[in-house]
Amino acid sequence: MSVIAELSIFPLGVQGSLAPYVAKAVHLIRESGLPHHLGPMGTCVEGEWDEVMAVVDQCFKALAVDQERVYMTLKVDWRAGRENGLHSKTASVESQFWSAR
Amino acid sequence: MSVIAELSIFPLGVQGSLAPYVAKAVHLIRESGLPHHLGPMGTCVEGEWDEVMAVVDQCFKALAVDQERVYMTLKVDWRAGRENGLHSKTASVESQFWSAR
Amino acid sequence: MSVIAELSIFPLGVQGSLAPYVAKAVHLIRESGLPHHLGPMGTCVEGEWDEVMAVVDQCFKALAVDQERVYMTLKVDWRAGRENGLHSKTASVESQFWSAR
Amino acid sequence: MSVIAELSIFPLGVQGSLAPYVAKAVHLIRESGLPHHLGPMGTCVEGEWDEVMAVVDQCFKALAVDQERVYMTLKVDWRAGRENGLHSKTASVESQFWSAR
Repeated sequence: MSVIAELSIFPLGVQGSLAPYVAKAVHLIRESGLPHHLGPMGTCVEGEWDEVMAVVDQCFKALAVDQERVYMTLKVDWRAGRENGLHSKTASVESQFWSAR
Repeated sequence: MSVIAELSIFPLGVQGSLAPYVAKAVHLIRESGLPHHLGPMGTCVEGEWDEVMAVVDQCFKALAVDQERVYMTLKVDWRAGRENGLHSKTASVESQFWSAR
Repeated sequence: MSVIAELSIFPLGVQGSLAPYVAKAVHLIRESGLPHHLGPMGTCVEGEWDEVMAVVDQCFKALAVDQERVYMTLKVDWRAGRENGLHSKTASVESQFWSAR
Repeated sequence: MSVIAELSIFPLGVQGSLAPYVAKAVHLIRESGLPHHLGPMGTCVEGEWDEVMAVVDQCFKALAVDQERVYMTLKVDWRAGRENGLHSKTASVESQFWSAR
């Protein structure tokens, strides 16, 4: 589970809340069974590169199918052999934070 | 509190974990008193534009002071009159998610 | 001129081309006198941190003033003592590219 | 050629210039034959979604193969039926810029 990818994806040119479109992507991410974390500015997904990119591919296609324009940003952090990074990355920052107090 | 900004900041060219550097930024964000959310790929901060950018400025300077190179990504979503967006953005996606089931 | 920042900024919820809004930001960047490079996905600006962030601040405020929602991404690469990075970064990649042939 | 994607990819934890790694990615992008634009903060590639993502996949794997950690950001702008967007996006901003003078 070496990749953590944060995906933000939404259509451009639509009025009102973008939540229905984001929910579509979150639905596909949940169906994938991969560990994920829904945040205010994007959803983090953890897995092997090919697994994660397959979900990104599905999310993009599900949004593009009935839109004129779609915008997406993806941030990827890959670390060889990392396990349970969704938890361990924030835990490690918190641990540093408290030990520096 | 119209701005939600997601900040990812770390030095380049250092070996080992980046957690100590991220913890430095998180410390400054917490000192600001602004609502925030620590995620695996960045920290979201909510506030008015000037408040949020003042914290970003502090974080950058705290990292740059003893490094050779610093990389930063910032994603900003500003919406006029939004309140409590750190909570409401994910709540609104979850609500769409469940109503579509 | 140690900072290169790539700015992408546009309103959400508007129909049609985003070019008029991007042009507003480009106008402010050009007025700043800082070296810049207009690309298909964002505009790179080079300068000291405070100079660059002052322009980002102006661009954001110029767009937010008559919009309901604004989205912005900023990528920053700061390197101590770098000169003429807008040119040297791509030149250095091209040089590697050709020497590896 | 509806997608424009800006790719920034580099290893973390290495000392010195990142240009050799970026050149590796640029080499693969050029071999793909897709229109592209090398910028100071990333390389823009234009094509259909599947074509562009196949190149991103190659770039990631080429960097990850002999590194411990790789960081990547990808920004995608997809617009149905757009042609020659690498040129037309900046041309359209310039045209707005000058007509507003």
